[in-house]
Amino acid sequence: MSSFLQKKRQEYIPELPSILSSREFPSFVPLATRQCDPRIQQLFPHSSSLNSLWEAGQGPASDGSRAVKRRPFSVALLFSGGPAPGGHNVVTGLFDALERIDPACKLYGFRGGPSGLIEGDYEQLSATRIAPYRNQGGFDLLGSSRTKIESEEQMQKAASHLLHLKIDALVIVGGDDSNTNAALLAEYFMREGHPISVIGIPKTIDGDLTTPEVPVSFGFDTACRVYSEMIGNLQRDVLSARKYTHFVKLMGRSASHIALECALHCQPNAVLIGEELRAQKNSLASVVQSLADLIEKRASEKRSYGVVLISEGLIEFLPEMDRLLQGLSKISASEPEKAAASLDPSLKESYLSLPARVQQQLLQGRDPHGNLNLSHIETDRLLIEMVKGELKRRSSSCKFDPICHFFGYEGRSSYPSHFDTHYTYALGWTAAYLISAGIDSCMAAIFNPHEAVTSWRVGGVPLTPLLTLEERKGKEKPVIRKTLVDLKGPLFQRLNQQRALWAKEDAYLYPGPMQFGPQPEWRQQLPLLLQEKSGGDR
Amino acid sequence: MSSFLQKKRQEYIPELPSILSSREFPSFVPLATRQCDPRIQQLFPHSSSLNSLWEAGQGPASDGSRAVKRRPFSVALLFSGGPAPGGHNVVTGLFDALERIDPACKLYGFRGGPSGLIEGDYEQLSATRIAPYRNQGGFDLLGSSRTKIESEEQMQKAASHLLHLKIDALVIVGGDDSNTNAALLAEYFMREGHPISVIGIPKTIDGDLTTPEVPVSFGFDTACRVYSEMIGNLQRDVLSARKYTHFVKLMGRSASHIALECALHCQPNAVLIGEELRAQKNSLASVVQSLADLIEKRASEKRSYGVVLISEGLIEFLPEMDRLLQGLSKISASEPEKAAASLDPSLKESYLSLPARVQQQLLQGRDPHGNLNLSHIETDRLLIEMVKGELKRRSSSCKFDPICHFFGYEGRSSYPSHFDTHYTYALGWTAAYLISAGIDSCMAAIFNPHEAVTSWRVGGVPLTPLLTLEERKGKEKPVIRKTLVDLKGPLFQRLNQQRALWAKEDAYLYPGPMQFGPQPEWRQQLPLLLQEKSGGDR
Repeated sequence: MSSFLQKKRQEYIPELPSILSSREFPSFVPLATRQCDPRIQQLFPHSSSLNSLWEAGQGPASDGSRAVKRRPFSVALLFSGGPAPGGHNVVTGLFDALERIDPACKLYGFRGGPSGLIEGDYEQLSATRIAPYRNQGGFDLLGSSRTKIESEEQMQKAASHLLHLKIDALVIVGGDDSNTNAALLAEYFMREGHPISVIGIPKTIDGDLTTPEVPVSFGFDTACRVYSEMIGNLQRDVLSARKYTHFVKLMGRSASHIALECALHCQPNAVLIGEELRAQKNSLASVVQSLADLIEKRASEKRSYGVVLISEGLIEFLPEMDRLLQGLSKISASEPEKAAASLDPSLKESYLSLPARVQQQLLQGRDPHGNLNLSHIETDRLLIEMVKGELKRRSSSCKFDPICHFFGYEGRSSYPSHFDTHYTYALGWTAAYLISAGIDSCMAAIFNPHEAVTSWRVGGVPLTPLLTLEERKGKEKPVIRKTLVDLKGPLFQRLNQQRALWAKEDAYLYPGPMQFGPQPEWRQQLPLLLQEKSGGDR
Repeated sequence: MSSFLQKKRQEYIPELPSILSSREFPSFVPLATRQCDPRIQQLFPHSSSLNSLWEAGQGPASDGSRAVKRRPFSVALLFSGGPAPGGHNVVTGLFDALERIDPACKLYGFRGGPSGLIEGDYEQLSATRIAPYRNQGGFDLLGSSRTKIESEEQMQKAASHLLHLKIDALVIVGGDDSNTNAALLAEYFMREGHPISVIGIPKTIDGDLTTPEVPVSFGFDTACRVYSEMIGNLQRDVLSARKYTHFVKLMGRSASHIALECALHCQPNAVLIGEELRAQKNSLASVVQSLADLIEKRASEKRSYGVVLISEGLIEFLPEMDRLLQGLSKISASEPEKAAASLDPSLKESYLSLPARVQQQLLQGRDPHGNLNLSHIETDRLLIEMVKGELKRRSSSCKFDPICHFFGYEGRSSYPSHFDTHYTYALGWTAAYLISAGIDSCMAAIFNPHEAVTSWRVGGVPLTPLLTLEERKGKEKPVIRKTLVDLKGPLFQRLNQQRALWAKEDAYLYPGPMQFGPQPEWRQQLPLLLQEKSGGDR
């Protein structure tokens, strides 16, 4: 039993970039060489030599290029980390491309993410098996997990299952951590002489995995559109009932791309961008004060209602909270009453300004390593509580009736937008051709997704040069650094120019539900992040 | 600045029932006479005589029927209570019909709901003014409020503004309370000899305002589809990540229609229907136990995830909680420690089974009249807490990672579904023709909305015979009784047949975002409530 849309979408055949659909198989030309950090080079002695940026081109393979050859080979794929809309189209794109390269090619799926690869939980995928998942949301064809394949033993187990199945290449669909893991696996396979190449697919709704050739990760566009539908609905509702202030917390701890994108989709009264607060060295108290100012100002103009967007990781961006955590980490969780006394005066004030419940949560919320962290603090509720307190302190008589929301899980597994539907399908095809050309340790990429699908340029970005060393839990680890919101970028600048108006008047937009129609208006919708590149819709 | 969908929808012209669009104006024929409760008759000595059920028909006005006459007249409209998708199309339908009847007709809108009528806050509506609101969500053209026009003074004020503007008829867009208020106003105007008729429009997302001729209120279909989109997304997500159990609380305190409709749209693992629990005389403890059973059973089959729907008013349906409230009402809020001791043994056990925080909330949450109520108890969080406790008590080792959601405001002001778009537009037209025929104290109605729009039969349902006396805050008051979920009805029966399967396996459906396309699949979607009447889609 399926819904109408489910069926309609199952039948849909996505458009393909001309370079992928043309009668001749593409060849890959090295566009540039990317240098590795010398310390990374030491950690990745084998795979750091794989540093070419590849682009698919037409015509016979010339010197230095790698042609896609017709020959049967076997590929394995797994999903890693949180779901993102479009994941299934990576599978169907990869499957369709393999069938085109050679119908004798095989595609295996490992179930339950990286854990499945360690445990050897897999299945061979057939056309019938994947048919119901075409253009659908979620990762449920195979499932996913956050496990990392890090230890020598885990690597060995993974390799043994792949070797047993005679897999030629492993495709890992994941975010920054998963692509780092892909680089580690590629290095391991090379070191051990296993003939298995590794291809990463840039996935994350957070939008924080980007490179110059990967201007957006898949899933981001859809998630923002799902949240924006709901935010728009709430905006219509506050303008109709004129009595509530909705605080909408948006998923994403590390970067505020989602909040920024949704703000530009919807034009709410305020949006709190973590990167900006950090740059301004803002304190929690000043955030609370500016919210209280906004609420008082609007109330004075008979607008005792509004919508405020908050990025989930907001308080983690405040330098003051960082210092507070460091101060508190020296205090035992069992002696909360001593906390305030033992902090230095500036931190003491910050600490005492927090609601008692939050003071307690701060002391108790230690991770397995004994480190304090902020991730279990409900930022939206905390802000509401503190704004209430601030209005009371000011003896303000203004009406403030807050309601909080968290939009996150609703957007991770939704039907993909037109953009993500095509983007992921093309990424699947690109992965197949990269593998067939014998390219290893690369992330599949669409270089110009802001242009029309047919003219998309596709290729591979070498993984190892993306790595850098960062301290994690007291140890230096290779990571792909997350892309934060660029405060000098055109998107943030657009916000900055318009936000004063949005705060004062109600310039609400109502994006509404995502449409899956043949009309060019729907088909050409781009993530705003990319529209800035193209100077408008494509 | 508008979104694509906003513009597309502004340009859309809804279909009309043939009876409304035909060249000849309809005449209204009395189909039946509805009897009033004698006590209601006493309270409504004037308007209780207006007890004909009217249907619009073609042909010359015969004896006993009322023909729509071409003559200019003036109408006022207001929104009452919470927003519901489609409200703006009542206005545009009414406006377009008035223009057709006589371009010299005037339409006024009172702003801010019934308060605006008391205060005289109005504006005359023009074609340009309403154009941006065509087929849009929300009530923001005029705003709304929950004020009731009850006192003699309020009635006088309302009348004075209407008389000043020479208004011939007042259209009230509202739910059961607002339509009761409409009946009171009609009685008052008759008693005072004011030549103002009153027409109600059946609005409420809750779906609990129905009569045999009003099988569904407007807004219900849309709200359920918005919630179902999100529920479907969560279902895909749990199946992908396989680690969370989402508790989704759905708006609506008095009836569980929304929960039932969404359950049939999405097929979640469980849905708690208040009416059923009341009929079974279920206790909170037994609800918690059955949820714990479900979670353990699923965990034993490697399904430590799921989606559970809860209607917002759930615990208010439990007879035990009613008794508990009565017991507690005798206890002073300032002596909580005495609460348990002074309850009788059976209630004491229920009380002590509640988390301490909820015990406190119960004692403190008194309304302005000193009555205790349950409305501020967060049912979803309470259930989660108690299920956790129960699993602990059972020393269960099963994984239970719950996340709670409340879907409500997101659905009240959304773009209306195809059904609600047409339903409300036709209701607006019907109201205009009822007024033009001189019909008073009626609710505009579409008798057969499960059939094709062009063959819809339209008319008026007399308001006063809908009234009954009920005790509210210790006083007998006329009310329109809310329609609860019919446990013998086909919809609940369908749920009952399928729910065991949904609990065990994952039979999830993913309705996805509402589509606004010309395809018959989208255009013909009906509320499931009505599909049962037609034996399928129309």
